[in-house]
Amino acid sequence: MAYFDAASGAPLHPVARQALMASLDEGWADPARLYREGRRARMLLDAAREAAAEAVECRPDELVFTTSGTRAVHSGTAGALAGRRRVGRHLIVSAVEHSSVLHAAQVHEAEGGTVTEVAVDRTGAVAPSAYAEALRPDTALACLQSANHEVGTVQPVAEVAEACRVAGVPLLVDAAQSLGWGPVRGDWSLLAASAHKWGGPSGVGLLVVRKGVRFAPQGPVDERESGRAAGFENLPAIVAAAASLRAVRAEAAEESARLRELTDRIRAGVPDRVPDVEVVGDPERRLPGIVTFSCLYVDGETLLHELDRAGFSVSSGSSCTSSTLTPSHVLKAMGVLSEGNVRVSLPAGTPREEVERFLSVLPGAVAGTREKLGAPVGAAAGGTGRGDDALVVDARGRRCPIPVIELAKVIGDVPVGGTVRVLADDEAARLDIPAWCEMRGQQYVGEEPADRGSAYVVRRVS
Amino acid sequence: MAYFDAASGAPLHPVARQALMASLDEGWADPARLYREGRRARMLLDAAREAAAEAVECRPDELVFTTSGTRAVHSGTAGALAGRRRVGRHLIVSAVEHSSVLHAAQVHEAEGGTVTEVAVDRTGAVAPSAYAEALRPDTALACLQSANHEVGTVQPVAEVAEACRVAGVPLLVDAAQSLGWGPVRGDWSLLAASAHKWGGPSGVGLLVVRKGVRFAPQGPVDERESGRAAGFENLPAIVAAAASLRAVRAEAAEESARLRELTDRIRAGVPDRVPDVEVVGDPERRLPGIVTFSCLYVDGETLLHELDRAGFSVSSGSSCTSSTLTPSHVLKAMGVLSEGNVRVSLPAGTPREEVERFLSVLPGAVAGTREKLGAPVGAAAGGTGRGDDALVVDARGRRCPIPVIELAKVIGDVPVGGTVRVLADDEAARLDIPAWCEMRGQQYVGEEPADRGSAYVVRRVS
Repeated sequence: MAYFDAASGAPLHPVARQALMASLDEGWADPARLYREGRRARMLLDAAREAAAEAVECRPDELVFTTSGTRAVHSGTAGALAGRRRVGRHLIVSAVEHSSVLHAAQVHEAEGGTVTEVAVDRTGAVAPSAYAEALRPDTALACLQSANHEVGTVQPVAEVAEACRVAGVPLLVDAAQSLGWGPVRGDWSLLAASAHKWGGPSGVGLLVVRKGVRFAPQGPVDERESGRAAGFENLPAIVAAAASLRAVRAEAAEESARLRELTDRIRAGVPDRVPDVEVVGDPERRLPGIVTFSCLYVDGETLLHELDRAGFSVSSGSSCTSSTLTPSHVLKAMGVLSEGNVRVSLPAGTPREEVERFLSVLPGAVAGTREKLGAPVGAAAGGTGRGDDALVVDARGRRCPIPVIELAKVIGDVPVGGTVRVLADDEAARLDIPAWCEMRGQQYVGEEPADRGSAYVVRRVS
Repeated sequence: MAYFDAASGAPLHPVARQALMASLDEGWADPARLYREGRRARMLLDAAREAAAEAVECRPDELVFTTSGTRAVHSGTAGALAGRRRVGRHLIVSAVEHSSVLHAAQVHEAEGGTVTEVAVDRTGAVAPSAYAEALRPDTALACLQSANHEVGTVQPVAEVAEACRVAGVPLLVDAAQSLGWGPVRGDWSLLAASAHKWGGPSGVGLLVVRKGVRFAPQGPVDERESGRAAGFENLPAIVAAAASLRAVRAEAAEESARLRELTDRIRAGVPDRVPDVEVVGDPERRLPGIVTFSCLYVDGETLLHELDRAGFSVSSGSSCTSSTLTPSHVLKAMGVLSEGNVRVSLPAGTPREEVERFLSVLPGAVAGTREKLGAPVGAAAGGTGRGDDALVVDARGRRCPIPVIELAKVIGDVPVGGTVRVLADDEAARLDIPAWCEMRGQQYVGEEPADRGSAYVVRRVS
């Protein structure tokens, strides 16, 4: 078995396990108590806070432990927005944030706030200028991830932080995917992270609020964690989180170089071995361990099952939407193909052989899936080109990737200059038909409303 | 070392430790994923939910895991209040709830809701009739603990639930202190609990919402835990929580009988060995492992240090106010002495010898503390009774128990029928001077405003 889904949750680092074991015996008592066990728990908590703060490069009293990265994001955004309520209620997020940030933005909007979603380019990166333009006099908070969780693209946090600093707006950085690799550079104001992303245990997040940042914790609080994270501290897990962060950091330089080489191998190797594949995300400015690609004419769910049977655990689309069938909001914002999407995220220590085996297994898995779906073979638009110059394909009621497969089957039947109208009611078609046109060098004319669903118009140009 | 503070947090049960270890290897993956590791995690999560639901006596789909008991209370109250917002915004709580409930009530009030605090009797119990009277047409929710965390008094939950049911108002039960001993009886609607109170790990709470109860989760949510607890599930801890709940339940009947005998021993033994002590809480309707008493003329903090030095870890006053110096809201609501307060809460497995040693160490610890403070010796009002018939003692700027000690020193100096006015600005005096009068058979006349602080007037009657 090869587990290639570290971006969802990494297996426990040996140091985390060791620290957890040790502090189960030493750190179960209430650190607010004055007796021996309580004082010992307090010492462990203080030491963990110092270690985590050192890794973040902040002051220990700026950092609190939360019960998850999601909780850190929710508490951080709510507290920062409330702290600047007098300034205004405008929130800026990127279109490719983790769902926890987008959920917080939705709640903010439902409560009467306004939200600007900053678009990304085809690599998944925001432009600092776009953040600068989104800033308004009533902007209370801006949020930006340090790196994207689905495609690995690293965001220009320092530049965006500088634009925010100039405007006097705090920037909250969701560092969940990158903190294990290094501190977040730049003049950010708040930071959220999640221990189980770096090999720490579940149940621990970090919330950092820089001194001087206005912050008004929301909801009921107590005296724990500076009034920013209510409830009995999960001390053994906190100790394990801090210890493992230190440990992964010690290995980060070497391991990131090694994983980058392996993901480079996948980035280059997949298109070599599998036809009709789009590797997505920035080829340079990216996390070491994540590589994402999409395969034309492939149903992601089926491909995942095939890979699972072959012993590979990977994910597809957004990390939080595996139970829904809508395309990932990240791929959508990037405007890239969503069908047959595979995210490979390698845990630290992944052996090279497993990656090689993945590359050898993948072509068969994709081909098998395509065959089942009756996908067209070969890249050229075949056919006689002697049919009508305005074909209609009705793919309503059929799910991704069928609409694209139907389009590919008939494109050769219209003469160059002719059009195909694909009727579809599956939301993925809106993303995948234009992406197919881009990959195939055909012209995407546009979308028109149709009875039940939409008509996607494609002109054959080659 | 004897750890006698199980009500704050119990040491990890061996079964919890074992389950935690096992599921660190098996249960670190995302249970929302479809690959092998994810499916395994899902199975573990489902099994844990079923085991916990069986212990609670609810349906598995009524129970979600939260990140702490505090979080369960906060999410439960917020969701239940929002779910019945159309009915009204009136909330009922008892005066002796855990601080997490009172904090939630404070937030509700700050947001425009109304709160009725139901008083308790001198044993710490509410009267079901008092809840029935507090119910209004606009009552959205009532909250009641199953048993008190400071004095161990068991609340009449089933009777209160029945009154609520008749009125169509949901009752949320904070079962944190009792769930390890058995399910909560009666027709309650919501239930919250905390694993580390029964020997499970930190970082796990339970929130149960009965089918048919209106519930609107507040704040950002995701697809985890039926949309009621956002963030990656802390699976190893959840598995350990469920396994240990099952384990402590299997031992509950025998262990509760044994602990009850030990706490009976303390309830009877402390007043026998230590003069001027008030044992508080209901002598019959109480949790097996908790016994609480207060010692006249004793500073709780100093006594705790003495006991800590003698190897006993106990707490004083509210479990969440050790860092503040205000008297516990529970003792205050009960109207009992708060000075020199000690809560002994025995973890399962406490050997009898430790309890005996505690009883042998306590008298010396109390006497030593009293001696340091210059407390009066003996129970009778000594003195000549030949002084003024209206003495004034100025104890302003001096902390508990000094005002009471000063009162005790001079009461003998006024003739029977004469009064002592104690000037004090320490909040504990408001509670402890009347309590002293009750213990000493003197008459508490009342409180009057004074320059800086209050004047507490006591009439000598014997």
